[in-house]
Amino acid sequence: MPDLYDVAAIGNAIVDVISPADDAFIDAQGLAKGGMTLVDAQRSSALYAEMAPGVETSGGSAANTVAGVASFGGAAVFLGKVANDQLGAVFTHDMRAIGARFDNLPLQIGPATAACMINVTPDGQRTMCTYLGASTHFAEDDVDDTVIEAAKIVYLEGYLFDAEPARRAFAKAAGLARASGRMLALTLSDGFVVERHRQALLGFIDSQVDLLFANEVEATALFQTDSFEAAAEALRGRVKLAAVTRGEKGSVILSQGERLQVAPERVEKVVDTTGAGDQYAAGFMFGLSRGRPLQACGRLASLAAAEVISHYGPRPQVQLKDLAAAKGF
Amino acid sequence: MPDLYDVAAIGNAIVDVISPADDAFIDAQGLAKGGMTLVDAQRSSALYAEMAPGVETSGGSAANTVAGVASFGGAAVFLGKVANDQLGAVFTHDMRAIGARFDNLPLQIGPATAACMINVTPDGQRTMCTYLGASTHFAEDDVDDTVIEAAKIVYLEGYLFDAEPARRAFAKAAGLARASGRMLALTLSDGFVVERHRQALLGFIDSQVDLLFANEVEATALFQTDSFEAAAEALRGRVKLAAVTRGEKGSVILSQGERLQVAPERVEKVVDTTGAGDQYAAGFMFGLSRGRPLQACGRLASLAAAEVISHYGPRPQVQLKDLAAAKGF
Repeated sequence: MPDLYDVAAIGNAIVDVISPADDAFIDAQGLAKGGMTLVDAQRSSALYAEMAPGVETSGGSAANTVAGVASFGGAAVFLGKVANDQLGAVFTHDMRAIGARFDNLPLQIGPATAACMINVTPDGQRTMCTYLGASTHFAEDDVDDTVIEAAKIVYLEGYLFDAEPARRAFAKAAGLARASGRMLALTLSDGFVVERHRQALLGFIDSQVDLLFANEVEATALFQTDSFEAAAEALRGRVKLAAVTRGEKGSVILSQGERLQVAPERVEKVVDTTGAGDQYAAGFMFGLSRGRPLQACGRLASLAAAEVISHYGPRPQVQLKDLAAAKGF
Repeated sequence: MPDLYDVAAIGNAIVDVISPADDAFIDAQGLAKGGMTLVDAQRSSALYAEMAPGVETSGGSAANTVAGVASFGGAAVFLGKVANDQLGAVFTHDMRAIGARFDNLPLQIGPATAACMINVTPDGQRTMCTYLGASTHFAEDDVDDTVIEAAKIVYLEGYLFDAEPARRAFAKAAGLARASGRMLALTLSDGFVVERHRQALLGFIDSQVDLLFANEVEATALFQTDSFEAAAEALRGRVKLAAVTRGEKGSVILSQGERLQVAPERVEKVVDTTGAGDQYAAGFMFGLSRGRPLQACGRLASLAAAEVISHYGPRPQVQLKDLAAAKGF
């Protein structure tokens, strides 16, 4: 197959509801600040009823990354499942409007489009509660073989390890990617996801993954250590390439031959950290797909992450292509 | 009836879809820049398909005003019609979350919740296309007598003159307000609304309206003149009290005895003018309901308008109560 896409990504198709909140609210609701909690429809409604007025905007980790790649001018495809409802239409519109491809048919009968309630505290931290709804119905048949075979990088979202049919879809996508010599990338997504599925994730990493994205919490959770250095060394022995983000400390790129430190891009004020990791992955993979050296990939990644944390919402509000050009890329 | 509410307002219950656009897009779509065009479901879908990625947020002119009054710490009620769908749930949540009352039952069978597609150009101007959907089903029976009788100011949105059942609801509300000695306020809403319903609006103003809100375009359209001064004089002869906004020139308050000039509040950068008139009305009516002199009402109005145009979205992002306190109110 020819190289039709820079990135093809599989993830939960989610619409975000973003509201401001204070720390007392996070405590009162019994939420783990900075983390992602899965909730059922009933708990979702109860939480929403207590939240401040919000804005709705398309989200979903891998979907945000696809939007970022498209914003850099890359060719990107998203694979995921919405329902045939208003929020599903919003998600679909936003994906296509940013220039990405998204062709999976909406679920006709069953739960609503997934929603993620994001409470943003004054320090810019986001605490998420996700109702997975229709997104858990993503299954093997939704993985389009011809798309996977034509993508330079196939990117998978660790969150999908929570849903059994999606894990089968992952296995299929990984098999197809391997068979056609494509690069397989995975993000660990969340510390609690790593705790829930540690063994399965390690097995998948060992057998299939070429490129791993993680933040510091996820990387240390994966190897059950408190030491970032120990986690970094373990990662280096395990995957060909890994990028570990460390918030304001920047990020570290680990490959079997080298270890690169990437400085963070300066941000005037951190408004909302939602999407920081997603946009980091977008910049990194766009650079990699276009044959840039690893240091440049890290800088494009940091640039995209800095843009997204300087405003509310998980997707770029400017053309990342223009931003990169302004920075000399 | 006791004074339970500062303001009870009747209007279209609308969720806004806000996207950035350039002037070429507005031209290509054949839209009147800065105005509001009514569209059917088909045109709405076609336009949406061409728009950039957006955010969804609760809107509707009178509903925005109610949100503003609540944000000032006032007791406010909204009366309007959503459908029993996801965007209807979003609208309802946001209204209650800001502390306002909204009890109208959603429409069970029929069109979807109203949506307003707002394209914001780099100059901060908003160009709106509204699909009225379920909101046109608001009718006489939806006007709760006990609410109207207990509100110091009953506020009506001129946009509703486009829907026949809503005009009957207006007539009922006006009758109830009159009978219980309440103040009746009306906003002209939009220049094209005035052109479409000039005679009906003039008749309604003469017979029922105590307080009229308009911007310069609407006021001159009402009296078919090019002269602001002529329109202002005509208004002064016609209603007890009027407030006319003039964008960066501030506003003018006209009462039978006096004419007050109100300076605009300084804004660092105008991002999105959506909701400016709505929040002006909120500040003005909150002040009036709390017995403030007209000049102070005008300043509260300008304060609220300045806050809303400094960010995307038609409702306050800070507590207007705190903002007013910081300014010495």
